[in-house]
Amino acid sequence: MKTEAAKGLDHIAIAVKDLEAAIRTYRDVLGLELAEVEEVAEQQVKVAIFGHGLGRVELISPTVADSGVARFIEKRGEGLHHICIEVEDIEGTMAGLKANGAPLLDEVPKAGAGGAKVAFVHPKGACGVLIELRQGPKST
Amino acid sequence: MKTEAAKGLDHIAIAVKDLEAAIRTYRDVLGLELAEVEEVAEQQVKVAIFGHGLGRVELISPTVADSGVARFIEKRGEGLHHICIEVEDIEGTMAGLKANGAPLLDEVPKAGAGGAKVAFVHPKGACGVLIELRQGPKST
Repeated sequence: MKTEAAKGLDHIAIAVKDLEAAIRTYRDVLGLELAEVEEVAEQQVKVAIFGHGLGRVELISPTVADSGVARFIEKRGEGLHHICIEVEDIEGTMAGLKANGAPLLDEVPKAGAGGAKVAFVHPKGACGVLIELRQGPKST
Repeated sequence: MKTEAAKGLDHIAIAVKDLEAAIRTYRDVLGLELAEVEEVAEQQVKVAIFGHGLGRVELISPTVADSGVARFIEKRGEGLHHICIEVEDIEGTMAGLKANGAPLLDEVPKAGAGGAKVAFVHPKGACGVLIELRQGPKST
């Protein structure tokens, strides 16, 4: 058995203006299963999460006018905000990216939801896509 | 048991200029598992596929200078090209999108890889993200 089974695309996050309208499109029209809607105060967004496990789709909508996601939408319109990749060793991955010349937006991992460690990589370091690295707590 | 278990995010496709360099980043640095590399002559791209099942990451690189993906990169730079959602009933989903005012790039489904039916939805109809709908052949 492989030990890396949990690695891969954790989720993608799409920045949207109107969360309720976006939920209607992704749930009612496209047929994705809405797992939960929650407010993430720290990031000043409300999030609708579709699916479970790897490959979730998240719609993120700003809750205040001057947040990072609000500025993203103002500048670039609605669209993909970031993709999140689950890694085994976030510090090692960050060191590898740095050695590869990829600019990191976080110098050290931050605390993420559910006891995870997370860090963002600038799109310049990953073919034009903002990447969130995530290392979840080891399951036993 | 749910019958819709196969629905969800099938893959995301990132347009890249240099496939070999991009593979080094996504496989060797980010640690994703490279499943296969193939040329899709019809779309004039070479594709590197990471992962298996739902939530795959695909890097797509143009094989000729005037293809759709080459023009995308020329205009917008490297970055997310589309996301693909697996649906149960592609014709029904397309009708729902149309009723919702979403512009479709295909009026009827086209033949996709592995016997699937596929159709593209304009980003205007899905919060700024180009969406490929896919309905795979029913497994027995």
